[in-house]
Amino acid sequence: MRIDLNSDLGEAFGSWQMGDDEAMLDIVTSANVACGFHAGDPSVARRTCANAAARGVSIGAHVAYRDLAGFGRRFMDVSPAELTADVLYQLGALQAMAKVAGTELTYVKPHGALYNTIVHHEKQAAAVVEAIVAFDPDLVLLGLPGAVVLDLAEEAGLRTAREAFADRGYMPDGTLAPRSQEGSVLHDPWQVAARMVQLVTTGTLEAVDGSTLSIEADSICTHGDSPGAVAMAGAVKEALTAAEVEVAAFAGS
Amino acid sequence: MRIDLNSDLGEAFGSWQMGDDEAMLDIVTSANVACGFHAGDPSVARRTCANAAARGVSIGAHVAYRDLAGFGRRFMDVSPAELTADVLYQLGALQAMAKVAGTELTYVKPHGALYNTIVHHEKQAAAVVEAIVAFDPDLVLLGLPGAVVLDLAEEAGLRTAREAFADRGYMPDGTLAPRSQEGSVLHDPWQVAARMVQLVTTGTLEAVDGSTLSIEADSICTHGDSPGAVAMAGAVKEALTAAEVEVAAFAGS
Amino acid sequence: MRIDLNSDLGEAFGSWQMGDDEAMLDIVTSANVACGFHAGDPSVARRTCANAAARGVSIGAHVAYRDLAGFGRRFMDVSPAELTADVLYQLGALQAMAKVAGTELTYVKPHGALYNTIVHHEKQAAAVVEAIVAFDPDLVLLGLPGAVVLDLAEEAGLRTAREAFADRGYMPDGTLAPRSQEGSVLHDPWQVAARMVQLVTTGTLEAVDGSTLSIEADSICTHGDSPGAVAMAGAVKEALTAAEVEVAAFAGS
Amino acid sequence: MRIDLNSDLGEAFGSWQMGDDEAMLDIVTSANVACGFHAGDPSVARRTCANAAARGVSIGAHVAYRDLAGFGRRFMDVSPAELTADVLYQLGALQAMAKVAGTELTYVKPHGALYNTIVHHEKQAAAVVEAIVAFDPDLVLLGLPGAVVLDLAEEAGLRTAREAFADRGYMPDGTLAPRSQEGSVLHDPWQVAARMVQLVTTGTLEAVDGSTLSIEADSICTHGDSPGAVAMAGAVKEALTAAEVEVAAFAGS
Repeated sequence: MRIDLNSDLGEAFGSWQMGDDEAMLDIVTSANVACGFHAGDPSVARRTCANAAARGVSIGAHVAYRDLAGFGRRFMDVSPAELTADVLYQLGALQAMAKVAGTELTYVKPHGALYNTIVHHEKQAAAVVEAIVAFDPDLVLLGLPGAVVLDLAEEAGLRTAREAFADRGYMPDGTLAPRSQEGSVLHDPWQVAARMVQLVTTGTLEAVDGSTLSIEADSICTHGDSPGAVAMAGAVKEALTAAEVEVAAFAGS
Repeated sequence: MRIDLNSDLGEAFGSWQMGDDEAMLDIVTSANVACGFHAGDPSVARRTCANAAARGVSIGAHVAYRDLAGFGRRFMDVSPAELTADVLYQLGALQAMAKVAGTELTYVKPHGALYNTIVHHEKQAAAVVEAIVAFDPDLVLLGLPGAVVLDLAEEAGLRTAREAFADRGYMPDGTLAPRSQEGSVLHDPWQVAARMVQLVTTGTLEAVDGSTLSIEADSICTHGDSPGAVAMAGAVKEALTAAEVEVAAFAGS
Repeated sequence: MRIDLNSDLGEAFGSWQMGDDEAMLDIVTSANVACGFHAGDPSVARRTCANAAARGVSIGAHVAYRDLAGFGRRFMDVSPAELTADVLYQLGALQAMAKVAGTELTYVKPHGALYNTIVHHEKQAAAVVEAIVAFDPDLVLLGLPGAVVLDLAEEAGLRTAREAFADRGYMPDGTLAPRSQEGSVLHDPWQVAARMVQLVTTGTLEAVDGSTLSIEADSICTHGDSPGAVAMAGAVKEALTAAEVEVAAFAGS
Repeated sequence: MRIDLNSDLGEAFGSWQMGDDEAMLDIVTSANVACGFHAGDPSVARRTCANAAARGVSIGAHVAYRDLAGFGRRFMDVSPAELTADVLYQLGALQAMAKVAGTELTYVKPHGALYNTIVHHEKQAAAVVEAIVAFDPDLVLLGLPGAVVLDLAEEAGLRTAREAFADRGYMPDGTLAPRSQEGSVLHDPWQVAARMVQLVTTGTLEAVDGSTLSIEADSICTHGDSPGAVAMAGAVKEALTAAEVEVAAFAGS
């Protein structure tokens, strides 16, 4: 049994900090590194890639809408051609940082509103896939199980990976519970850790209504910027290791 | 005898146009393509690289300070480490656009205030050189004859190229005549063309005081965004060709 | 009989030009001045307000989404509270430029995707109204006939004005013909001028199918950035004047 | 005896936080509110002005170079005309936020590299003064004792105020000790508090070499974004109050 742990990192910008990237890099096996469109700047991206490379953590490009003020969390009705170019630009910029750190990008994870949009928006999803295929068809696309972008990626010959969210409650149909709902966000590190062990070892999770659902996941997303993020990620990793699950990157050497 | 013609291209941004890139690409042999920091955006950069590649025009990264509002023409006291990261980011982003156009970057030309600053500012000059060496030591650095950045680049093992300015008057010491001075900017395409033929065939130019000076140049910069830019570049190329000078890129295949 | 002519102005940014603002200011009676979010910068906004004030042209704030790269033409799912703050910021910034030009803002016209969105998006529409009411309830809101934002503005006690588009074809139901349709964009200055005289003197226009429709308009929008823009605006003004229609601002002294 | 306490506030941006503004607003009497050029965004500026107004804290515009990525800490060689327009834009934007909070701007404090530059750079200093005079000559300019911008402001008829830095060591000549020097930054709240009481009650401070120097100050700057910032500002206020010094804004009602 084997699983990857990923986290959103490199999200500082200029004088503003976010999260404890170095502590998270000691735990996770894949780093979704911001590319400067929703967060990150060239210096932050360079340092984050260097820190990831030094620990053997796999580097993914966390591509986003061009919206620093909104942290990439606001849907933007970008045309497909613009979106493809925007993603290419971010992939290239981050590849430079991986390269000078002695390594290279292994995957792509869309961020925020773009991530959510291309679960269903076919034109934007196709635009993202087009960028990855053109830039490097060996890159893996990491996304939400069931997302249309994963289907399109596979049709285009890309490898894909699916993620589960460590600290989120699920509806019986496998979608994330809306944040307005009781139990949608989990805070207890050991409860979360136990759930992730169950997920990896049995392929199931308990939904918010108590029912059991099947979840397919190649990676577990642990949030890096919330209070207690490091403790929760550490608990998940410790519990997985104790359960003899190998924690390793889904992409890369 | 052989010379390169270069021009600053890809300087549109969003809905704003600048110059007639396609007409210039039919003339020049090297395209200094904006990387999004002083001008250009991902869509413009992608289109410009594709148009250059389709014509066999060599692509250079026109790296700049992060200053869209000032078009990269205002000195910024950026720390060396930030500048290195900023240049790496731009190199990577533009490399992606060259790559998806089926080619690759062959050189780097700093833009505007950065270009002028690293004629003499050793720390910023070293920071630019560090970025190029780390990213790809096969890239050629194009700059002003006598610039400290060219010395540092050569010490670091980079190849360098020197440019002359087609439409500018020179002082007897080989520096550009200040724009406030009579004769500092030349407007007659055929006068300019004749000067460039003299430059390439004899290595000399007439200075603003009528004296003759020696100029070493691997490339001739023809401005792309002034009225008459296309006509002037065309006249230079036609005159050079008539004088049996080979017009070819200094870098690349 | 009286009508206003408005145009989108001050849309240069940094080194990039757009349109011929001074020529348009010699014709129009209301200037929709960009506030820096979709176009314009502080220097451009200051100059445009000064040029408008010098001609007695009424100044309106052309508020937009924060999207320079997309020229404010892409829908953004901004929260109402953020949108209210964004509009307030733009109103204040442009008010400063009007003030130092010896005048003041008289109206507000939302731009691009924001303009189109608040025709129907109640929450964003209410957010824009809230900003205007809070900043200065004497400002007039200029928009599309039938837009929900005009209804909300009137409910909140604001004065409103409605505009027709000089160079656009209309559907029989009074909406603009989609750009994909034959006859959706008109290019002949004198045809456009004759239509506008009919509009002002009879309150009717011929729709693309030849039927006659009623249009209520306090202002005619003449585009400032297309080829022939100045000629068309000039023709409209000349024809209106010849028809003894008073061309005067709908808002201001 | 009377003194003002000021602090740099409203320096969050989008999803990034900085400092504990509400706690600082419970202590200081003047808030230097970021205007969106080095930090702050419309939502942050609006909230900060509302929070300041609710506590009767005087609001100043913390104007800066247009450099979010560098937090306004990098010198930019902006032309005087551009700088005047940039400052006007920021003043107007923040005035809108003060206005909708039921109050108005009372002063201006340049930020970061701009603050330091106009201690000596006459053209940029004059550009800042021109903006304030044009926008509202009743605004007070807060700056460093001895700065050329204060002289120019007074010549132009503006009122000025001078500030001392609570947590910084001073050289015998009254300039700030360079950060590289031992004793340049003070960390003990009660030592700092005692120094500030001495400053206000005697007009003197002990320099880093143990000598005594005279300092003229209308306001004490307490940094808002360092660890312990709130504790230090609180200690200064408590000590001043205990010494029967009135802590009150230098500007405003």
